[in-house]
Amino acid sequence: MIKVGIVGGTGYTGVELLRLLAQHPQARVEVITSRSEDGVKVADLYPNLRGHYDGLAFSVPDVNRLGACDVVFFATPHGVAHALAGELLATGTRIIDLSADFRLRDAEEWSRWYGQPHGAPQLLEQAVYGLPEVNREAIRSARLIAVPGCYPTATQLGLIPLLEAGLADPAQLIADCKSGVSGAGRGASVGSLLCEASESMKAYAVAGHRHLPEIRQGLNLAAGQPVGLTFVPHLTPMIRGIHATLYASVKDRSVDLQALFEQRYAAEPFVDVMPAGSHPETRSVKGANTCRIAVHRPQGGDLVVVLSVIDNLVKGASGQAVQNMNIAMGLEETLGLSHPALMP
Amino acid sequence: MIKVGIVGGTGYTGVELLRLLAQHPQARVEVITSRSEDGVKVADLYPNLRGHYDGLAFSVPDVNRLGACDVVFFATPHGVAHALAGELLATGTRIIDLSADFRLRDAEEWSRWYGQPHGAPQLLEQAVYGLPEVNREAIRSARLIAVPGCYPTATQLGLIPLLEAGLADPAQLIADCKSGVSGAGRGASVGSLLCEASESMKAYAVAGHRHLPEIRQGLNLAAGQPVGLTFVPHLTPMIRGIHATLYASVKDRSVDLQALFEQRYAAEPFVDVMPAGSHPETRSVKGANTCRIAVHRPQGGDLVVVLSVIDNLVKGASGQAVQNMNIAMGLEETLGLSHPALMP
Amino acid sequence: MIKVGIVGGTGYTGVELLRLLAQHPQARVEVITSRSEDGVKVADLYPNLRGHYDGLAFSVPDVNRLGACDVVFFATPHGVAHALAGELLATGTRIIDLSADFRLRDAEEWSRWYGQPHGAPQLLEQAVYGLPEVNREAIRSARLIAVPGCYPTATQLGLIPLLEAGLADPAQLIADCKSGVSGAGRGASVGSLLCEASESMKAYAVAGHRHLPEIRQGLNLAAGQPVGLTFVPHLTPMIRGIHATLYASVKDRSVDLQALFEQRYAAEPFVDVMPAGSHPETRSVKGANTCRIAVHRPQGGDLVVVLSVIDNLVKGASGQAVQNMNIAMGLEETLGLSHPALMP
Amino acid sequence: MIKVGIVGGTGYTGVELLRLLAQHPQARVEVITSRSEDGVKVADLYPNLRGHYDGLAFSVPDVNRLGACDVVFFATPHGVAHALAGELLATGTRIIDLSADFRLRDAEEWSRWYGQPHGAPQLLEQAVYGLPEVNREAIRSARLIAVPGCYPTATQLGLIPLLEAGLADPAQLIADCKSGVSGAGRGASVGSLLCEASESMKAYAVAGHRHLPEIRQGLNLAAGQPVGLTFVPHLTPMIRGIHATLYASVKDRSVDLQALFEQRYAAEPFVDVMPAGSHPETRSVKGANTCRIAVHRPQGGDLVVVLSVIDNLVKGASGQAVQNMNIAMGLEETLGLSHPALMP
Repeated sequence: MIKVGIVGGTGYTGVELLRLLAQHPQARVEVITSRSEDGVKVADLYPNLRGHYDGLAFSVPDVNRLGACDVVFFATPHGVAHALAGELLATGTRIIDLSADFRLRDAEEWSRWYGQPHGAPQLLEQAVYGLPEVNREAIRSARLIAVPGCYPTATQLGLIPLLEAGLADPAQLIADCKSGVSGAGRGASVGSLLCEASESMKAYAVAGHRHLPEIRQGLNLAAGQPVGLTFVPHLTPMIRGIHATLYASVKDRSVDLQALFEQRYAAEPFVDVMPAGSHPETRSVKGANTCRIAVHRPQGGDLVVVLSVIDNLVKGASGQAVQNMNIAMGLEETLGLSHPALMP
Repeated sequence: MIKVGIVGGTGYTGVELLRLLAQHPQARVEVITSRSEDGVKVADLYPNLRGHYDGLAFSVPDVNRLGACDVVFFATPHGVAHALAGELLATGTRIIDLSADFRLRDAEEWSRWYGQPHGAPQLLEQAVYGLPEVNREAIRSARLIAVPGCYPTATQLGLIPLLEAGLADPAQLIADCKSGVSGAGRGASVGSLLCEASESMKAYAVAGHRHLPEIRQGLNLAAGQPVGLTFVPHLTPMIRGIHATLYASVKDRSVDLQALFEQRYAAEPFVDVMPAGSHPETRSVKGANTCRIAVHRPQGGDLVVVLSVIDNLVKGASGQAVQNMNIAMGLEETLGLSHPALMP
Repeated sequence: MIKVGIVGGTGYTGVELLRLLAQHPQARVEVITSRSEDGVKVADLYPNLRGHYDGLAFSVPDVNRLGACDVVFFATPHGVAHALAGELLATGTRIIDLSADFRLRDAEEWSRWYGQPHGAPQLLEQAVYGLPEVNREAIRSARLIAVPGCYPTATQLGLIPLLEAGLADPAQLIADCKSGVSGAGRGASVGSLLCEASESMKAYAVAGHRHLPEIRQGLNLAAGQPVGLTFVPHLTPMIRGIHATLYASVKDRSVDLQALFEQRYAAEPFVDVMPAGSHPETRSVKGANTCRIAVHRPQGGDLVVVLSVIDNLVKGASGQAVQNMNIAMGLEETLGLSHPALMP
Repeated sequence: MIKVGIVGGTGYTGVELLRLLAQHPQARVEVITSRSEDGVKVADLYPNLRGHYDGLAFSVPDVNRLGACDVVFFATPHGVAHALAGELLATGTRIIDLSADFRLRDAEEWSRWYGQPHGAPQLLEQAVYGLPEVNREAIRSARLIAVPGCYPTATQLGLIPLLEAGLADPAQLIADCKSGVSGAGRGASVGSLLCEASESMKAYAVAGHRHLPEIRQGLNLAAGQPVGLTFVPHLTPMIRGIHATLYASVKDRSVDLQALFEQRYAAEPFVDVMPAGSHPETRSVKGANTCRIAVHRPQGGDLVVVLSVIDNLVKGASGQAVQNMNIAMGLEETLGLSHPALMP
């Protein structure tokens, strides 16, 4: 039984970790920390967990208790993992960080986008970007895993088959992404109120969103060269789900794109390439760790449209984190993650 | 491994059975029938099941194939189980009927409310009302189980502690119930369109809803006398969930109602009596087989208010059906049903 | 042209006043105050108003500027109108207060429910409760009008025909009310986030909600004696709307309740008694100043069920405030308020 | 007072016409037709209209009665206006057709996309495409007006400033559009059920949507040459609203795009170019006839992103139809259309 610690478990990725780990046959949450909720039982904050973690309460972070765990998840705002990771790694535990702290390879770029100095540049070398469909081997032996962001997961999984095959023009990629409101977290902000965010649709951060450099970094690697990417996120009136609509110019019309995608993901347990002509719905992955993808070439033109959907809290965060844990701990990769999506 | 058949699996209770049974370690769906979707793979109709039932397709009902199953679920409109149950029971299989066909003990009352003759009155004697919190022993040996309706489950679980204890005035009980739209099924009706049912609230069937006689029958048994019940269902702009707000006059103010409810359900794995002062939310049971209850006596008066929430598709239908299967087949009652609710 | 001032216009009742007054042919907003948004244009905070109030900006409250208005609306948290009303009334302007400050006749009861001393008990004598269907004559000459709360409006309009006629047992009235989330205001609270409040239903404040004494006060007057009322509010996953489901025992079965309600409201421009058997939907009044009511006697029993729906921001707040303004200023009562609801 | 007829008023564009015309000071609905609802009062089908059209009932289409109107709106499925328009125009009335029947100049292209022969090619020459921002002069004297579709309105208004100015590369335009469910109409289809369409996002008709040729036709005219357009519509979990996210390559970085858009629409009463950096929300136009637009050039690159939002039932259908009526009848263009959007 793997001993699990969670740092900062009061937000949506925290409660989702608890939900998923409650179903995991080989993991047990030993410690969960929160400064603001110290002493509060997790089931009092999240009544859906009543009957599942009845003895577990939030406590203030303690490196000794966390260090006694086999794996420590960080479900924290950016900067927190920077501060704690070094000391914690020294205890010998593994860190799986759901925040953005170790996603970018370049500390300076991180600083530019997050508006503060990078707090642990010395750890970047050992940090592994936890996208199993690209980095599975490195994840197996990683001590510090940076779980990809939600938009980056949906977008990279949709575009890398084209880029790895050298088919798409890397200069003009577009990711028009629609996210449910849970992506904004559980903080009390006016913009996330039901009365503000339901019955409406809007783009945001068109000038530049923090996930842009992360996506670009991943696409650069897949393409083997710097890509030009326009990324426009949208706030969608629903709780969960990301729908990435991806546009790329593919001049070679002789390629069977359907076959390309199917082959690329043939061995992947959590990527479902749907039949030609499909339109994946975000609800088809609600609560599940699956990314469903469909590839289109409208009117047989040069522009390829890839549709890629995930649950931002599962494959876009906590589910992918557990998938990383399974890989890193030598377990069956799908353990605890094989339940179907909730539909309707 | 229990062999399972499902008759009429294209609706919401059908797909929910498939979702739950996909996680059940001791059951395997062998047959699923639908006349309209004959030959269609279940994962083509319900993409959330892709990767789970890839070999399973709908077929036309066949008593031989169904009779070879250990358990056959009916997830059909009323009347269908009437027509098939007799022949099927003769094969030796068990029937767990999610429809209303065998819920009422009185065939004439059934006819009045459903507007057609009862099709199998001779089977009523062996039919067991599948509310485990009341009928667990009878369920163990039942061959024909009538799974309670969604409103009846939430309402009975909320009121029977008061009635069994002889505390509530049985003459004037009120059940003000709010249901998500999935209770109306997957049929294409204007009233269930997103544009008609979202961003709105309304009562319906105030003059008399088909669940009224079912609830009354259960409360009569608990009270040991005929009760007077006013039942007002409301359509609520959400997919899943029932919130029953129950009103009963309890003149004896010396009784500790919180203790009464806690004792009544102390051994029940799927009824959660919340701490005094709680307000259960339907989302706290979304996707889970739990009924959460809170009991209030506002301003210390005579009127007791019980709040009872379930997921209408789980504890109100398919989850309760699986719970019945577990009991009837001698399995652990919670098998395949212990995952937490999806929240947020 | 009536000169209008608005104190505290940044919340939902404030923007709704602006929306309604933009369509009012005889009113013009001269001043709108907000300490936090001083200098901000209203159309910058509320883009739906772009093109309507392009010169209007929030300013800090100034009694001279407000006093120069014919009418000043308060759309403020409780306590603010207490502090400003006396000085403002001395200027000769009229006050229409959308807050709870002057709704209760009894200053001590106000203090108990709002947890602070009543700030202006000397003004209570001249305060008029602004429910036109009850108090129209007093409103005509009022200088200080307390606009009823949202739950109190829906509940009183539904019950007073029965109580005024002496038909209902006043000892055991029940108001089971369902409100959209906008009733909780525009404050950034976790409970009002889309991810917390959508796809869920819950009761709240069952032990006692601040609207309880206000409703009771109105029903006492209608009944001519103290009533016993149980009031259970519920948070409903939609933006606007209140659905009050009201229960009263009416032993006299000879009365034609439909006729009673139709006669009571025959002359009321904003109360619509629907045909017998109707189930009013909240969306049928979305954005409109109408209360729609239907009266039922299920199964011909003693318990009468009244269904009453309003838009909490219109007839439950800002629309009713404008209706009061029209009456008090001697205008046609429906002026600026006759547009239909937005449906779908 | 303009006498108005409406053919096919039972759908969402029909009820929206009624809502808007109820507020129009110079128009009066004399006739409204529906074969299926013959004899039913409009307020019985649409309770939001109770008190507004109490004498008006649906009747079967009658050319004499319709011909006696000054204007006849068609709010019908495609093909109906083809069948009736010729006879009706002969009576001297004007036709404003909200369907797709006369939007395409090319009868053969119409046939390809709609799968049936064009029913009135002889009328195409006199049909005027009713986008006032492009065709105002022609609309003034038009007898037969084809009201643009919802996606075409949002997309054309967002792209034509760039194309008219010759700035955008016409070969690779992308319109990624998100629509509320009311765009699918009031027909009872499974895909539009609340349980299917809420809490989810999906693209549809990626291979080719019927609005594609209409948009392309308009953009061709603006560009003065054939354009290459990829159009991907998405179903969004809300009732009303279209958000068009438009991508165009603009190599000349010296142009002040903000000024270009502001100048193009300076005189337009229903197009609101928002300040630089804005992100228009669909709710900011809910119920209003406004198109709000913002223009971005992310990271100063070549790709321009235009955000354009409308209410699909107002500026995307019935409001634009009334705007056309005002123009064609010589009225003030904004008459009856100047109310603000409903927000929240």
